[in-house]
Amino acid sequence: MIKITFPDGSVREYEAGITGLDIAKSISNSLARDIVSVSVNGTNLDATRPIHTDATIKLHKFDDPEGKYAFWHSSAHLMAEALEALYPGVKFGIGPPIDNGFYYDVDLGEDRVLTDADLPDIEAKMSELAKQKNDYQRQEVSKQEALDYFSDKGDEYKLELINELEDGTISFYQQGNFVDLCRGPHIPNTGFIKALKLTSIAGAYWRGDENRKQLTRVYGITFPKKSMLDEYLEMLEQAKERDHRKLGRELELFMFSNRVGQGLPIWLPKGAALRERLENFLRSVQRKHGYQQVITPHIGQKELYVTSGHYAKYGKDSFQPINTPAEGEEFLLKPMNCPHHCEIYNSKPRSYKDLPIRMAEFGTVYRYEQSGELHGLTRVRGFTQDDAHIFCRPDQLKDEFIKVIDIILYIFKVLDFNDYTAQISLRDPGNKDKYIGTDENWEKAEAAIIEAAEEKGLHTTVETGEAAFYGPKLDFMVKDAIGRKWQLGTIQVDYNLPDRFELEYIGSDDHRHRPVMIHRAPFGSMERFVAVLIEHTGGKFPLWLTPDQVVVLPISEKYNDYAQKVLNYLNNCDIRTLIDGRNEKIGRKIRDNELLRIPYLLIVGENEQNEESVSVRRQGEGDKGTMKLKEFEQYLNKEIDKLLLY
Amino acid sequence: MIKITFPDGSVREYEAGITGLDIAKSISNSLARDIVSVSVNGTNLDATRPIHTDATIKLHKFDDPEGKYAFWHSSAHLMAEALEALYPGVKFGIGPPIDNGFYYDVDLGEDRVLTDADLPDIEAKMSELAKQKNDYQRQEVSKQEALDYFSDKGDEYKLELINELEDGTISFYQQGNFVDLCRGPHIPNTGFIKALKLTSIAGAYWRGDENRKQLTRVYGITFPKKSMLDEYLEMLEQAKERDHRKLGRELELFMFSNRVGQGLPIWLPKGAALRERLENFLRSVQRKHGYQQVITPHIGQKELYVTSGHYAKYGKDSFQPINTPAEGEEFLLKPMNCPHHCEIYNSKPRSYKDLPIRMAEFGTVYRYEQSGELHGLTRVRGFTQDDAHIFCRPDQLKDEFIKVIDIILYIFKVLDFNDYTAQISLRDPGNKDKYIGTDENWEKAEAAIIEAAEEKGLHTTVETGEAAFYGPKLDFMVKDAIGRKWQLGTIQVDYNLPDRFELEYIGSDDHRHRPVMIHRAPFGSMERFVAVLIEHTGGKFPLWLTPDQVVVLPISEKYNDYAQKVLNYLNNCDIRTLIDGRNEKIGRKIRDNELLRIPYLLIVGENEQNEESVSVRRQGEGDKGTMKLKEFEQYLNKEIDKLLLY
Repeated sequence: MIKITFPDGSVREYEAGITGLDIAKSISNSLARDIVSVSVNGTNLDATRPIHTDATIKLHKFDDPEGKYAFWHSSAHLMAEALEALYPGVKFGIGPPIDNGFYYDVDLGEDRVLTDADLPDIEAKMSELAKQKNDYQRQEVSKQEALDYFSDKGDEYKLELINELEDGTISFYQQGNFVDLCRGPHIPNTGFIKALKLTSIAGAYWRGDENRKQLTRVYGITFPKKSMLDEYLEMLEQAKERDHRKLGRELELFMFSNRVGQGLPIWLPKGAALRERLENFLRSVQRKHGYQQVITPHIGQKELYVTSGHYAKYGKDSFQPINTPAEGEEFLLKPMNCPHHCEIYNSKPRSYKDLPIRMAEFGTVYRYEQSGELHGLTRVRGFTQDDAHIFCRPDQLKDEFIKVIDIILYIFKVLDFNDYTAQISLRDPGNKDKYIGTDENWEKAEAAIIEAAEEKGLHTTVETGEAAFYGPKLDFMVKDAIGRKWQLGTIQVDYNLPDRFELEYIGSDDHRHRPVMIHRAPFGSMERFVAVLIEHTGGKFPLWLTPDQVVVLPISEKYNDYAQKVLNYLNNCDIRTLIDGRNEKIGRKIRDNELLRIPYLLIVGENEQNEESVSVRRQGEGDKGTMKLKEFEQYLNKEIDKLLLY
Repeated sequence: MIKITFPDGSVREYEAGITGLDIAKSISNSLARDIVSVSVNGTNLDATRPIHTDATIKLHKFDDPEGKYAFWHSSAHLMAEALEALYPGVKFGIGPPIDNGFYYDVDLGEDRVLTDADLPDIEAKMSELAKQKNDYQRQEVSKQEALDYFSDKGDEYKLELINELEDGTISFYQQGNFVDLCRGPHIPNTGFIKALKLTSIAGAYWRGDENRKQLTRVYGITFPKKSMLDEYLEMLEQAKERDHRKLGRELELFMFSNRVGQGLPIWLPKGAALRERLENFLRSVQRKHGYQQVITPHIGQKELYVTSGHYAKYGKDSFQPINTPAEGEEFLLKPMNCPHHCEIYNSKPRSYKDLPIRMAEFGTVYRYEQSGELHGLTRVRGFTQDDAHIFCRPDQLKDEFIKVIDIILYIFKVLDFNDYTAQISLRDPGNKDKYIGTDENWEKAEAAIIEAAEEKGLHTTVETGEAAFYGPKLDFMVKDAIGRKWQLGTIQVDYNLPDRFELEYIGSDDHRHRPVMIHRAPFGSMERFVAVLIEHTGGKFPLWLTPDQVVVLPISEKYNDYAQKVLNYLNNCDIRTLIDGRNEKIGRKIRDNELLRIPYLLIVGENEQNEESVSVRRQGEGDKGTMKLKEFEQYLNKEIDKLLLY
C-alpha cells in the first residue's frame, strides 16, 4: 500500500500502481469524469499513469492551468490525427498547448495549401475521432526505436527533434491510429473533447528560423462542454468589438505612423487628454502619499547602464548605442528610469531622517521588440511608465510596501477593476546563487511582502523561484469585464541597484548604511493601462475620464444658438461639451453620438429653449428626463464625485 | 555740393569730401563728442571717412550696436598697442569686437605666459595710450605692401590672413605706434575710451583649429564714461549672484550627472514642480485659445527626417542613428516635433472647415552640442519645447499670427517680462533662390507678419535676409531685471514642410489645397525659460509659481505642534508650506529660510499659539504684522490672484 496525500492534507492509502483516475473514481464517478490530469509530487502527469510510491497529488479538472495544458495538448494530437486522415503524408513539426488553445505546425507538401475553407472538414474529422473515445496511450521508447519509427514514416522534423533528445527520456503517445513523439501529459481519451473550433491558419518558420522551411500553423481551441465553446466564441466576438486598436482608431485616441516607426504610439488630442487626466489623477494620489515628481532625460551614457548592469544583460538585444558626431561619446535610449533616479539619490548626502524618499516620474522608456511581436498599445517599442522608486531603510520596507499596495488598490477601485489577484514571487531557496543579496535581507524582504499582502487581505498565489534576481516581488492581475486577465501593477524589492550605485545614508548610529529600493508602477505603463481600460470599458470610460462628457444635439439648426448657450454654460463649469450642429435628423445625430461613446446626449428644441432646460439621454441607457441647466450640472457632478469617493 | 539725407528724412547740402564727424559738428559740438562712427548708405564707416557723393547717413553714438562695434574694435587695437609696448615681439591673430567688449588672440612667444596678475599693467598702459588721444588713421595698401610690412614685422598670423585677401581690398589702421591689418571702422581717436577693464584670459586655437597653435585670448571691455563701466561691473556682480547654475544648485531645482551625460538636465522635485506649474499655466492658456495637446515619441525613423529635409541638413552634425539589433531599422532622436505633427495632420482627410488646427506638445527634443558649448540650462543637449504647430489656410494666416502674438504677450505679462522687443526677419529680395515657396506666398506671409505686429503695436526691428529658408519669422527678446537681453519666443511661418509632407485640405471649391504651417514656442524651451526666469527674478519666483510658498518657523520646539497645525491648515488650502522644526535660534532660522527665497516666513510662538495666528514676514521685505490663519490665507490668495489677473 502507498500513502496518497491530498491538497487539504488528508491522507488515504491505496494499492501501489493505482492511477490518478482510479483515485478520483474512489471518491466519486462524477469527479472522475472531470479529471484530465494529475500532479504527482508537483509534476503534471497523465491521469492514467500508475503511482508506485507515497505521493502528494492534486487532481486537475479542465479549469486548472495544468488541466488545460493536458487538454489542449491532447487536442493538438487529435487535430494531427485528423490531418493525417485527410492529408496522407502530412509531416508534423511541433504542436504545443498555448494560453488559449493549441496549434500544430505542419508540412502538407509542396502542392497543398490549407485555407480557412478547409477548416470545417478538419473539425468534422476531429469530432468523429473524438467520439471514438480513443485512449491516449503512453509508450516509453529507446532513441533508436523512435528514430526508426519516424524514418519509416519519413518525417524529418520529428527526426531532428529526436536527435536532440537523450536516450532513456523519450516517449510516444498514441490515440487511434496516430502516434506522436511526446512527453505528455494527456487526457485519458479523446471522448473528453466535446466541443472544438479551429480558429486560424498562419505561416511559421520551422524552429522560428527564417532561413528554414515555412510550415503551416493551424490554431484551434477545444472544451469539455459545448456551452464553454459558445461562451468562448461569444467572448472572442466581444473582444473583437472591444479591441483597443479598433476603438483607439474609431474614438481617435491614438495612431501609429509608418514614417515615424512601428510600435511607437502617437497620442491624438482625445487620447492625450485622457492620458493627461489619468496622469494627473496618479500625480495627485501620489502627492498625498508623499511622492515627489522628477523629470529625467530619455537617454543616458552607456556607462550608466554598465554601472546598473542593464547593458551586460540587455545591451545586445536593445536599440543600439547612439554615437556623437565628435568626442566619441555613446548614449543609449533609456530602457528604464531607475539608474537616473539612483543618480538623483546620490546627488547629495542622505540621512536616516530623510528616508523614505519616494521619487516618481512619468518616464518614457524605449525597448526594442521585433516587429512581429508588436501589438497595439500592449506591446510597443516606446512607453511611459507610471514609475516610482522608494529608497527606504530596511526597517521601513514593510510599511512602505503596505502603502504601495494601498495606492494600487485605491487606483483599481476608482477605475472599476474590482476583480484582481496578486502573485508573490519568491526566490528558489534551493538555488540561492542565482540571486544577489544576503540571506538576511532576502528573508526580511520576503517576510515583509508576505506580511504586507496578508495585512491587506490580498488573495495571493505564491510562486517560488519566480523572484527577480535582485529581489522578491508582488504582481497584480486584473480581470476585465469579459473575464480576460491582464497583468497591471507591479511592486519589486531591489538590493542590486543600491549596491551597484553605492547608495548610502548616514544612520542614527552615524555610520553609513545601504538603503533598499522599491520599484513600483500601478499601471505598468500608460499605454498598457489605456489599452486595458479601453478593452475593459469597451470605450465607455468613466465620466471623469472620458474625452467628451456631453454632446448637445439641437433638433434643428434653429436651436443652434441655444445649443451654444448650453455649451458655454457647461464649459464654464469645466464640463467637457461638444455640439453636433450638423444639418441631420435628430435620430441620426443620436445614433452617431451613441457610437462615439459620449456619456450624455442633451437634446434641445423649442421647449428646452423656452424653459432653459435640456432633455437628457445617457449613452446606452436612454432617456433621463428634462432638467434645468443647473440641475443637470449638479446631476453630472454627483456622478463624478461618487466615482472618486473612495 | 552733395546732398546728405538724415534718418528723419531731412536733407542738407555739404561740400563733397565732408566727414560724418564734421556733419555732426555742423549740428552741435556736444553731438560731435559722442559720435563714434557713421553709417553711409547702410555701411558702418569711420566718422572721419570723407563722403564724396549724395548719401543717406546715420550718425552713431556708443549706444547704437554700430557704435559699440567701432568702439570695441578700436579698443582691441588699443589693447594690442599696449601689449606691443609691454611685450615687444608679441604677434597678433585676430581681435574682434564681441557682444560685450572685445578680445585679441596673441602669441607671446614660447616662454611668456600671461596671467590675471599681468592685467593691471596692461590696463594702465592702455589708459596711458588712451589719454594721448591718438587718431585712428586709415590707409589703403596693396597686397604686396601689406605682405612686406608684416614680413618685416615677422607676424606669420597676419601674413596668413593677408594671403587670403584680394588685392585692392586691403587697409591698415594706425594709432600711435601701432599698425594693424583691418577693415575698420574705428572711432576718431583713442581719447574716446574713458574707462576700461580687462576681464579674463583664455586659450584659443589659431583659427579655431585644434591642430594649430594655441594662442592667448585676452578679453576686455571699455566705455566712453567711467560710470558706465561701474554699472557694467555691478551688473556682472549681480549676474554672478543670479547665475541660474548657482541658484539651480542652491534651490535644488535641477542637476547634471556625469554618468547620465553632460548637457542632459535632470529636474529635481522642486524644479520639476515649478516646471509642471509653468506647463499647466501654458496648457490652460493654450486650451482657451483652441489648442489641442498631442504626445509623440522621442525617436522617429531616419526616413521621417529624410522626408522633412532635416536629415540632409543636420544629420551629420546630430546624434547619430540608432540601429535595431535585427530588422536593420534606423531611428534618430527627434531634433524637433514638427515632422511628427505633420504625420498626425496626414492621418485623416481635412476640410477647410477643420482649419485652423492648433497642435501643441511639450516635446522633448535632443540636439548634439559640443561639450565646450554647453552652459547650464541655456545650452543643453536635450530640452523640452513648449511647441505648437498651427495648420491654417493662407487666408487665416494673419489672424492666427495675431492670436499667437496675443498669447506670447499675455505670458510675458503674467511672468513679469515687461521690457521686450521683437524682430521681424524677412527674405533677401535680391537673393530669392535661397528660399523656397512662391513669390505670392512670401509676399502674403511677410505682409501678414508686418501687419500683425503693427496691429499689436509691437516695437519691432525688421531684418532683411534673416528669414529662415522656409519662411519669414518674428522673434521676441526680453530684457531681464538687470538689463540683459534674452531671446525667448519665436513665431515662424513655414511653406516647406507642408510641401514635403504633401499636407492637404479640401477647400470650399472641392479642390485640394496646401495649408500653411506656423511654428511657435513662447518660452522657446522649458529649460531656457526657467534659466531666464531664475536670472530675471534672482530665484525669487512669483508666488503662484515658487516651489515653497510658506515656511513656518516655531520659535522653539515647544511650538512644533502648533506649527504642524498651521501647516495642515495651509496645505489644505493648497498653499505649499514647509516647517523648519530644527532646534536652532529663530534668528538663524529666519536667515537660512530667507536664503532659500521662500516668499513667506511665519513665526509662531506663545502669542500666536494662543491667538491661533501667525507673525508674517515677507522674504526680503521684513515684518508684515500678525494675522489670523484665515486672514493670512486671504492675504496670500489676493496676491496670487492679482498676479494672474491680466
